[in-house]
Amino acid sequence: MTQNIYDNPEFFEGYSRLGRSVEGLDGAAEWPALRALLPDLQGLRVLDLGCGYGWFCQWAQQQGATHVLGLDVSEKMLARARSTTSPAITYARADLEHLDLQAAPFDLAYCSLALHYIQDLSSLLAKIYGALVPGGTFVFSAEHPVFTAPSHPAWSLEQGRKIWPLDSYLIEGPRTTDWLTKGVIKQHRTVGTYLNLLLDAGFAICRVEEWGPTDQQIAARPALADERQRPPFLLVAARR
Amino acid sequence: MTQNIYDNPEFFEGYSRLGRSVEGLDGAAEWPALRALLPDLQGLRVLDLGCGYGWFCQWAQQQGATHVLGLDVSEKMLARARSTTSPAITYARADLEHLDLQAAPFDLAYCSLALHYIQDLSSLLAKIYGALVPGGTFVFSAEHPVFTAPSHPAWSLEQGRKIWPLDSYLIEGPRTTDWLTKGVIKQHRTVGTYLNLLLDAGFAICRVEEWGPTDQQIAARPALADERQRPPFLLVAARR
Repeated sequence: MTQNIYDNPEFFEGYSRLGRSVEGLDGAAEWPALRALLPDLQGLRVLDLGCGYGWFCQWAQQQGATHVLGLDVSEKMLARARSTTSPAITYARADLEHLDLQAAPFDLAYCSLALHYIQDLSSLLAKIYGALVPGGTFVFSAEHPVFTAPSHPAWSLEQGRKIWPLDSYLIEGPRTTDWLTKGVIKQHRTVGTYLNLLLDAGFAICRVEEWGPTDQQIAARPALADERQRPPFLLVAARR
Repeated sequence: MTQNIYDNPEFFEGYSRLGRSVEGLDGAAEWPALRALLPDLQGLRVLDLGCGYGWFCQWAQQQGATHVLGLDVSEKMLARARSTTSPAITYARADLEHLDLQAAPFDLAYCSLALHYIQDLSSLLAKIYGALVPGGTFVFSAEHPVFTAPSHPAWSLEQGRKIWPLDSYLIEGPRTTDWLTKGVIKQHRTVGTYLNLLLDAGFAICRVEEWGPTDQQIAARPALADERQRPPFLLVAARR
């Protein structure tokens, strides 16, 4: 059973203060790059896996999606999504590790920063594939494997340079880190594994972005420059 | 103009003593994984880009390829390939940076550890795509981007752990290192860029392997275990 860290009070409290929680999609530095991987949403049926506060669901509805279903394991996040976004959006509680989707074909499946919590990614991808119409799109972001790999994932100084101490990259499996609260468990897998599991599920790879900040983003927030040393996020677009 | 380091006497002398030069394909630890990405070669027309000593060309011919063309920029390596492998193999001198292929469609294009020297990869991939029949396969290996990225690419000890000091990953471009001789220039690009350039050229991605040693390989050569900390090679299979 995947840890439901989002219903941990300390984690939820910390998470609710992050830029991406307070400001919505525009508070996430990778959002413009992720948005660029999306099709025109006008008239599409959209599935958001790990919808959190419902920011993406709301945006999808504003873009003209005809049906939007947001799934999340966290009751707290669903409660807030229901109370702050359009009543035309459907929200439901679902553990992505044991997803049971009705036979409702979607044109777009979207998943922001949730797959690195999933133990059985192969099963989940098969279900997402099954929930899409032929030609449908799956777009996701995840913490980048070079970000999740290290046994001590923190910047280090080496001869005055900031370096990311990469190790254990090819040793896949759980990683326990302290982020917002103690003992957050993520599943490390390689870029190759993410892509090969998509291919095994039947998807065609359309785009692979290892996200880093633009010059403009660094000008506005100089601390973002560090993220060019190693990508924090992996963004992928695939097609059924 | 890409540096032709292979005709540098010191580099050539060092290179000729490597396991992969002395023992051929079986001297390259990644060969079994690369071979697993290849189709059955029986009856295929095969193009080897950066053929070196001709080990792969010879193997392809032994596997039943009907036509094998090996290209390399190094006169020294071609001379040795011609003198030690089958006269049925065609060798020609070619700078992969300025490739001029005759209109001879191939079923398989293969490129081992050469693409990280190429400046204009986009042009080369378009030419490889054009040289393949529809449904034809392109298989390549390259130094992995986490291997080529760092400003100081060497293992480091941090609290007793061996770590790979990753930096500059998202800053693409030339890297000058000392390997076998001084001033070897490689082109660093990200995994995402390799894959997106393939997609832009029209290829479908079939498999992405971030190579690491098997348990058996580590049992036979314990020093290989370090390579699990970060992959030294990227192996990709794509289809026209």
